[in-house]
Amino acid sequence: MTESAPVPNEKAVPNGNPPPPFYLPFPDRPELITENLLKLVELTPDPRHKFLARTLITHLHQFVNETSLTTEEWMTAIQFLTRVGQTCTPLRQEFVLLSDTLGVSALVDAINNPPISGGTESSVLGPFFTEDAPDVENGESIASEGKGEYMYVEGRVLSTDGTPVSGATVETWETDALGYYDTQYEHRDKPDCRGRLRTDKDGKYGYRAVVPVAYPIPGDGPVGAMVVKLGRHNMRPNHLHMMIEAPGFNKLTTALYPEGDQWLSSDAVFGVKKSLVVSLRDVYDDAESRKRGFPKGGSFKLLQHDIILVPEADSKAARAQYARERAEKAGLKLPE
Amino acid sequence: MTESAPVPNEKAVPNGNPPPPFYLPFPDRPELITENLLKLVELTPDPRHKFLARTLITHLHQFVNETSLTTEEWMTAIQFLTRVGQTCTPLRQEFVLLSDTLGVSALVDAINNPPISGGTESSVLGPFFTEDAPDVENGESIASEGKGEYMYVEGRVLSTDGTPVSGATVETWETDALGYYDTQYEHRDKPDCRGRLRTDKDGKYGYRAVVPVAYPIPGDGPVGAMVVKLGRHNMRPNHLHMMIEAPGFNKLTTALYPEGDQWLSSDAVFGVKKSLVVSLRDVYDDAESRKRGFPKGGSFKLLQHDIILVPEADSKAARAQYARERAEKAGLKLPE
Repeated sequence: MTESAPVPNEKAVPNGNPPPPFYLPFPDRPELITENLLKLVELTPDPRHKFLARTLITHLHQFVNETSLTTEEWMTAIQFLTRVGQTCTPLRQEFVLLSDTLGVSALVDAINNPPISGGTESSVLGPFFTEDAPDVENGESIASEGKGEYMYVEGRVLSTDGTPVSGATVETWETDALGYYDTQYEHRDKPDCRGRLRTDKDGKYGYRAVVPVAYPIPGDGPVGAMVVKLGRHNMRPNHLHMMIEAPGFNKLTTALYPEGDQWLSSDAVFGVKKSLVVSLRDVYDDAESRKRGFPKGGSFKLLQHDIILVPEADSKAARAQYARERAEKAGLKLPE
Repeated sequence: MTESAPVPNEKAVPNGNPPPPFYLPFPDRPELITENLLKLVELTPDPRHKFLARTLITHLHQFVNETSLTTEEWMTAIQFLTRVGQTCTPLRQEFVLLSDTLGVSALVDAINNPPISGGTESSVLGPFFTEDAPDVENGESIASEGKGEYMYVEGRVLSTDGTPVSGATVETWETDALGYYDTQYEHRDKPDCRGRLRTDKDGKYGYRAVVPVAYPIPGDGPVGAMVVKLGRHNMRPNHLHMMIEAPGFNKLTTALYPEGDQWLSSDAVFGVKKSLVVSLRDVYDDAESRKRGFPKGGSFKLLQHDIILVPEADSKAARAQYARERAEKAGLKLPE
C-alpha cells in the first residue's frame, strides 16, 4: 500500500445521519429521482417542515418536468439566483424584490392577513424598510427640508370596536420627490423620509412628511433585468408605508396610495388594494402651514386617515379559518 | 408651493415599458394577484420565456396557497436564499448544491440526457468543477504525491457505433483521500486532483489519480443546515468526475462510482445510476506500478472503463422526442 504524505486537515466530518432505513432504487429514471426524494422527506423530524419540503419538492420537480427545462436554462437560473443573493446588502434586499415582482409577497400578505370587517387592510412590506428609523414626536417631520412637496399625515389608530388605541407605534417611510428611498442614496449618513412615532392618549397621530411620488423599483440589478425580459413596466404608484403595532393587536403592515396615479392598478409588486387608495387634500393656507411647522409655509397636502387595528385573537382565528377554507378548496389537508 | 432644495441626483429612471394595454382589477383577493400576474406574463416577448414564467408563477403560487405559507416562513425563506447566494464564491456554488440536494440537478440531467442505447449515461456536474484544471499528458498524474491511494484510470472513448474518438477532451476531478476537493482547501495555490487530457489516435486515455473517497457535501453553509433539518445524511459515495467533449458528439458530464460504497443508493445528490457503478481492480505489482509512473511503486487500483459518446444529431433527436413524450404524459403542449 502507498504511504500518504502528512496531511494538514482532518477528514471531512459527515452530519452524522445514517443511510435511510429503507430501500431506495438507483434513480435511473427521472421519476425515481422524485420518488426517492419524497421517500427521504419522510425522515424530516418537524411535521411542518416535512409538509413544506414535500410540497416544495413536488412543485419544483413538476416545474422542471412540465417545461423540460434545459441544462442551459438551469444554469441561467443558478446564475440568476446567485446574482440576486449577491446583490443583497444590509440596505438592499433583492430577494424580497424578486418575491415582490413575482407576486409572492403580495400573496403571502393576502393569505396571512385576511380582510376582517372594519380592519385596515394590509399591503406588502417592500424591500425599503429599515430598522433605524428615528423616533419623532407627534407634529414633527420625518423628512429633512427640501425633500419634496409638503404633506401632513394625520388620523387616529382605533380598534375594530371604535376604541382609540393609545401608545401604538406608527412606523412610516416613503420616497423623496425624486422617487428614491434614503437607502438608495449614494451617501446615506442618516435615515431620511422615515420615522417612528406613538399615538397620543386619544389614539391620534400626526406628522409632517413629503408627497411621495411614483418610482421604478431598482432597475440596476438582476430583478430589474428580469422585469424587462418579462415586458413589464417596473413602476410603483406613489405611496406612504405604515407599520402599526400595539399590544394585543395584530401587527399591521400597510401602505396608503394617493388616488389618480397611472400605475395604481398595475403596481409592479401587486401591493394596492382598493380600500388603501386615499385622497390628498390641497390646503392653501400659509398660516395653517406654518402653524403645522412647515418651515417655508405656503400650501401643503393633507392626508387624513384612520387606521383600524384588529385584536390579535380575532386575527388569529380569521387566519386559521382562512387557511382551512383554502386548504379544503385545494383538496388538501393542512397538518394541525 | 414649496421650493425644493437643490438635489444631488436625477429622478429615478423607469424601464420605459408603459402600463399594460388591458384592464387589471385591484388585487383585493389572493386569486386576483395570481390572475393579474398571469395576464401580465402575456406581455413577455420571448415565447419560451413566457412559457417558463407562466409555469414558474403557477407553481410558486400553488406552493404558497397549498401550504398557507406564513409571513415568518416567507421571511425565513428569503433569508435562507440570501445566505445561499452570499455563500457563493468563484470556487463555491451553494445554489448548485441546493439544486443538487433537492434533486433538481439530477432531474434536469436526466431529462436532458435520456439514455441512448449504448451511450454512457450522464451524472450530475456537482459544485466542484473548476475552469482551471491543468492539461496533462496521457500517463501523467492529476494528483500531487501524497493525496491518497494510487489509482490508474484508463479506457477508450468510442462512438455508439464502436469507432474510436481521437482527440476527445477528457476533463476529470475527484476528492483526495480525506474527502476534500482542492477548492475546499484553506490555501489553494494551484489546482490538484483535477486535470484535462486528450484521447490518442486510438481513442485511448489513461492517467494516474488517487482512489476517491465518500465525503460529506459541505455542511458549514445554509444547504448543509437544511439537509440536517430534513433528517438526511449528507454523504456522497466515492466517485470520479469525468466530462468528455469531442466535435460532433453530445458533451457528456458523468461520474464513475466504485462499487461497495454504503452511500451508493442514497447519494445525497441523487447522482448514481446503476450503469455508472464500476469495479476497481487491485494490482499488487511493484514493477507495473513503477512502470505506470507511481513514484513509490507498490500496489495500485486499476479502473478500466470505456466511455461511449452519442453523436450530437442522435442526442438532439432523442432529447426532443423525450420532451414531447413527457409533455404529452403531463397533458401539456410544449411550445415548438
